[in-house]
Amino acid sequence: MQDEPMLDLAHLGHLELLTPKPDESLRFFVDVLGMTESGRQGDSVYLRGWDDYERHSLKLTAAKQPGMGHMAFRARSPQALERRVAALKGTGYDIGWTDGDLGHGPAFLCRDPDGHVVELYYDTEWYAAPPELKPALKNQAQRFPARGVNVRRLDHLNCLASDIRENRLFFERYLGCRLTEQIVLNDGTEAGMWMTLTNKSYDFAYTRDHTGAKGRFHHLTYALDSREEILRAADIFLEAGVPIESGPHKHAVQQTFFLYVYEPGGNRVEVCNAGARLILAPDWKPIVWTEEERKKGQAWGMKTVESFHTYGTPPVEGHP
Amino acid sequence: MQDEPMLDLAHLGHLELLTPKPDESLRFFVDVLGMTESGRQGDSVYLRGWDDYERHSLKLTAAKQPGMGHMAFRARSPQALERRVAALKGTGYDIGWTDGDLGHGPAFLCRDPDGHVVELYYDTEWYAAPPELKPALKNQAQRFPARGVNVRRLDHLNCLASDIRENRLFFERYLGCRLTEQIVLNDGTEAGMWMTLTNKSYDFAYTRDHTGAKGRFHHLTYALDSREEILRAADIFLEAGVPIESGPHKHAVQQTFFLYVYEPGGNRVEVCNAGARLILAPDWKPIVWTEEERKKGQAWGMKTVESFHTYGTPPVEGHP
Amino acid sequence: MQDEPMLDLAHLGHLELLTPKPDESLRFFVDVLGMTESGRQGDSVYLRGWDDYERHSLKLTAAKQPGMGHMAFRARSPQALERRVAALKGTGYDIGWTDGDLGHGPAFLCRDPDGHVVELYYDTEWYAAPPELKPALKNQAQRFPARGVNVRRLDHLNCLASDIRENRLFFERYLGCRLTEQIVLNDGTEAGMWMTLTNKSYDFAYTRDHTGAKGRFHHLTYALDSREEILRAADIFLEAGVPIESGPHKHAVQQTFFLYVYEPGGNRVEVCNAGARLILAPDWKPIVWTEEERKKGQAWGMKTVESFHTYGTPPVEGHP
Amino acid sequence: MQDEPMLDLAHLGHLELLTPKPDESLRFFVDVLGMTESGRQGDSVYLRGWDDYERHSLKLTAAKQPGMGHMAFRARSPQALERRVAALKGTGYDIGWTDGDLGHGPAFLCRDPDGHVVELYYDTEWYAAPPELKPALKNQAQRFPARGVNVRRLDHLNCLASDIRENRLFFERYLGCRLTEQIVLNDGTEAGMWMTLTNKSYDFAYTRDHTGAKGRFHHLTYALDSREEILRAADIFLEAGVPIESGPHKHAVQQTFFLYVYEPGGNRVEVCNAGARLILAPDWKPIVWTEEERKKGQAWGMKTVESFHTYGTPPVEGHP
Repeated sequence: MQDEPMLDLAHLGHLELLTPKPDESLRFFVDVLGMTESGRQGDSVYLRGWDDYERHSLKLTAAKQPGMGHMAFRARSPQALERRVAALKGTGYDIGWTDGDLGHGPAFLCRDPDGHVVELYYDTEWYAAPPELKPALKNQAQRFPARGVNVRRLDHLNCLASDIRENRLFFERYLGCRLTEQIVLNDGTEAGMWMTLTNKSYDFAYTRDHTGAKGRFHHLTYALDSREEILRAADIFLEAGVPIESGPHKHAVQQTFFLYVYEPGGNRVEVCNAGARLILAPDWKPIVWTEEERKKGQAWGMKTVESFHTYGTPPVEGHP
Repeated sequence: MQDEPMLDLAHLGHLELLTPKPDESLRFFVDVLGMTESGRQGDSVYLRGWDDYERHSLKLTAAKQPGMGHMAFRARSPQALERRVAALKGTGYDIGWTDGDLGHGPAFLCRDPDGHVVELYYDTEWYAAPPELKPALKNQAQRFPARGVNVRRLDHLNCLASDIRENRLFFERYLGCRLTEQIVLNDGTEAGMWMTLTNKSYDFAYTRDHTGAKGRFHHLTYALDSREEILRAADIFLEAGVPIESGPHKHAVQQTFFLYVYEPGGNRVEVCNAGARLILAPDWKPIVWTEEERKKGQAWGMKTVESFHTYGTPPVEGHP
Repeated sequence: MQDEPMLDLAHLGHLELLTPKPDESLRFFVDVLGMTESGRQGDSVYLRGWDDYERHSLKLTAAKQPGMGHMAFRARSPQALERRVAALKGTGYDIGWTDGDLGHGPAFLCRDPDGHVVELYYDTEWYAAPPELKPALKNQAQRFPARGVNVRRLDHLNCLASDIRENRLFFERYLGCRLTEQIVLNDGTEAGMWMTLTNKSYDFAYTRDHTGAKGRFHHLTYALDSREEILRAADIFLEAGVPIESGPHKHAVQQTFFLYVYEPGGNRVEVCNAGARLILAPDWKPIVWTEEERKKGQAWGMKTVESFHTYGTPPVEGHP
Repeated sequence: MQDEPMLDLAHLGHLELLTPKPDESLRFFVDVLGMTESGRQGDSVYLRGWDDYERHSLKLTAAKQPGMGHMAFRARSPQALERRVAALKGTGYDIGWTDGDLGHGPAFLCRDPDGHVVELYYDTEWYAAPPELKPALKNQAQRFPARGVNVRRLDHLNCLASDIRENRLFFERYLGCRLTEQIVLNDGTEAGMWMTLTNKSYDFAYTRDHTGAKGRFHHLTYALDSREEILRAADIFLEAGVPIESGPHKHAVQQTFFLYVYEPGGNRVEVCNAGARLILAPDWKPIVWTEEERKKGQAWGMKTVESFHTYGTPPVEGHP
């Protein structure tokens, strides 16, 4: 009889984004994306979408270069967190415990094989809206802002890595993440992976870094309620002078309706909508995309812009 | 330290709907809702939405009266199914094993305290589309039909019950369902409950049956990708002469964007959209709605039509 | 051979709205509806939607009571304006010339049979956006505001009148307005009329005032690009504490997708969307709705709230 | 004082499309686009969208090569038609009267300077829906089909021409069409024109034919109610194996939300949505786009595919 699925991690909780232009990045996330500032500490500002239940889903930190500081997953229970820590200790991937951060309690840090920092935590601070941000309906975390793009909640992130297979095995074995879709080249090389902890079809993705650099970041994504809102977001980005890299269009992989822009610090940011698509099967069989299939472009035939395959943060010289 | 959540059931798999007008009901589900027939056996026709991954999500069975034959939940693993069966045996709620049905393997039957039949199973048949229904994108179960309302997948169902609290305890203790929202009257009586097994904010709901009857059914619901599609569905129902009971409008409870109609057999059918709303917190604290809050009507103020509080299937004389 | 249609008036240009709470009304139109202030003079503030081509489409004037100050139609040419003035002079409906107002040149005033003031003008000031409101695309009047409901342009208005037929004849004979739909009761009484000067299916409507009062106002309406935006507007009104009277729903008459609220001064305000529906036929035959047909309620069956039939501005005691 | 605008033509009524694969083209328009057949005569099938008020908006005619047979404009009155005929006679552009066709009465034919045939008519047959296609709401021409893309009504067409300026002058002087947007190259050459007879921002467009061929056709366009429906149309085209050339995306010119495909006969077909955008100003000043502005690509930055600039029907060898 097959092993039972490991269900210790509940969902992607937040990520830390590094920016060399902290003031401009902050204005982008608050004024254009419509996020709410929910804390400041040191060189960091904490931000949230109106439906994120935790205090924040984005930690924006001033740094010399853009990129991702760390990603953080919330465990399903204290016991589940302990099990993950026990499994990681001594593997060489483990870093160790921290006291936590604004918004959450003690966290265990580790590194994926490509060097990205991954944080695991359970204790968290539920967002308590101040009076002026209290929603009309009590089953909502915060008032709908009616400002800019009005992003709802953190949806997923995408990292770059030299060896996708190695990272897939790490997230499967140690964190219990489930692969839902992947790209496998004709020579058997894994070129992309989409993994989930939830009924969302992915909580994070990894795609290949062709530059030889390590620990780089591709994009973070906030969810909106409809494709119509993504289209309107494109209008708002255009008016605000935010560079649009690609979209709105529909990915063949995961069928995500996407729109990619660059925030002022240089990081790629996506807004997306997936309609009512969910992965409900507990034994989902990963979809494998071939080289030939990927050459067809996006779902409705748009060719992928070159920068999407090469640009990441921090940027690498010669790879725009 | 608190107990860990029980995660043995994965999701609502299908339900059996009884109809005294099997031919007309079938035409409604196929021609108007846009579902696909995927099997016939005995007095039953098996039906599916284009994104349901299992062979069917609806078993439509000829019967003297409308109502629900049974609801079925898929377990997360064979071991998980065994644990649920072990817990149920001898409680008085258990009925026993069946050999299964078209589309799924052996199933364990039980009854909730109000008498509705609940089926648990693990082995299932993944839908294999015939050539003419193969989708263009391999991560989709079936070709988009482009016919009628084009319902995507089974979303949830709603039963009526005399004692909501008793049923809540049954689903929490024996099946590991999690309460996300409820209505509690001023005298402490529970009047409605919304429970989930997934990241959807509910997979089924129970609301009070004021007639004294047992085991009655309120509605089943298919999901569409956008609110715009729900609005278009209203146009299509109007053109097809399908009686619209209520909506499109937005529920305050769960914020579901809803539209209720009656299929020819007399059962209430809903199409809904919830946007990007998901329950990601593993420790979600149930939202409790009071009598006063419910008196405000739906989210945008529409008064709930009386029949919504009284009509169920099978119908009870004197309660239209 | 039939007469040729009279085409002297081009479209509804603006209206003057009276409010006893000018500051709160202004905040509603700017912060909630997302309009832009484009001038002040005396007790009036001039406002515009982001796609109105003239300087303003709404003149908001402080007054003791809510209601409509006047409605204004732009003529198609100077010659066309002269023809309309010549036709009106001496009819008893004519008031006379004014020097114009902020945003437009000399205007001829008249009164409809119910006493509403109607202004005709040709010379107008095209809106010139200041640098911070310049749009990214040069075929757009102003930057998309990304604030609140983001109303696009003035769509239509609705007055109340004791005798609909008399007012219809006035607008047909003297102003060349074309009737597209009407309600005619079983005894032959006309109970509502929808008239147009454009390819929009109506630029204004009149419905019956049962109170015996004269010159009252029912509502003004701004257009949004999609039904999805109307639904989002409902969320925004809910969050802002703006009272929603009715909707979102679809009228049977004209098939308008509507949402009615009250602005702080007491006037009814609508946001609407009509999709791609246009009246292209130059010889459109008016649609006549009977009493029986109107009793069916709105397009999808929602019953019309009572206040919609009785409340107008200024309010009349005993008719809430 | 300036001349008054000429308003003799009301709107684009229909066009005749030539196809070398009449059966496959017919299946495309009926099964995929969701149009309704409303007549047959000779080698032609007559088709309509569900909101076209005339009997047909498309005459599909078997021919050796794809392309446009003729375009047809409905006059605003019999007198208006006579005035246009009087103006055209003897200009060298005039062809003469025909007895009419299925669906409309006597028509006057002429040729634009590039050789496209233009038909003018007034008498028309209003569509009378057979019982099974009667709509639920009497202000609608036909039941919503709920099949395929469900195109609503003919929106516009686009021809190719060697000399845009010459064609612009023809349509302005003889037919009273109004220019709303145009492309003018740095050397003063006009490279594209968008003209209207209505409040729609264009009823037809002409863009440059670089091949030296004459009388060629670029595309015809049907309108849908929302951008969401255009996105769903892309899914439906993908499933049906219809080649998508470009989109969905937003044009900078006219801000049309577009999606271009090829019908089986080789003609380019577009579905579009323009939201609530209308040209209400009777004295609209044409928007002039420069070479530099056009190089920016579409509204949200997508580069225009090469075939869009070169392919037309009938095709010209060496210009795919």
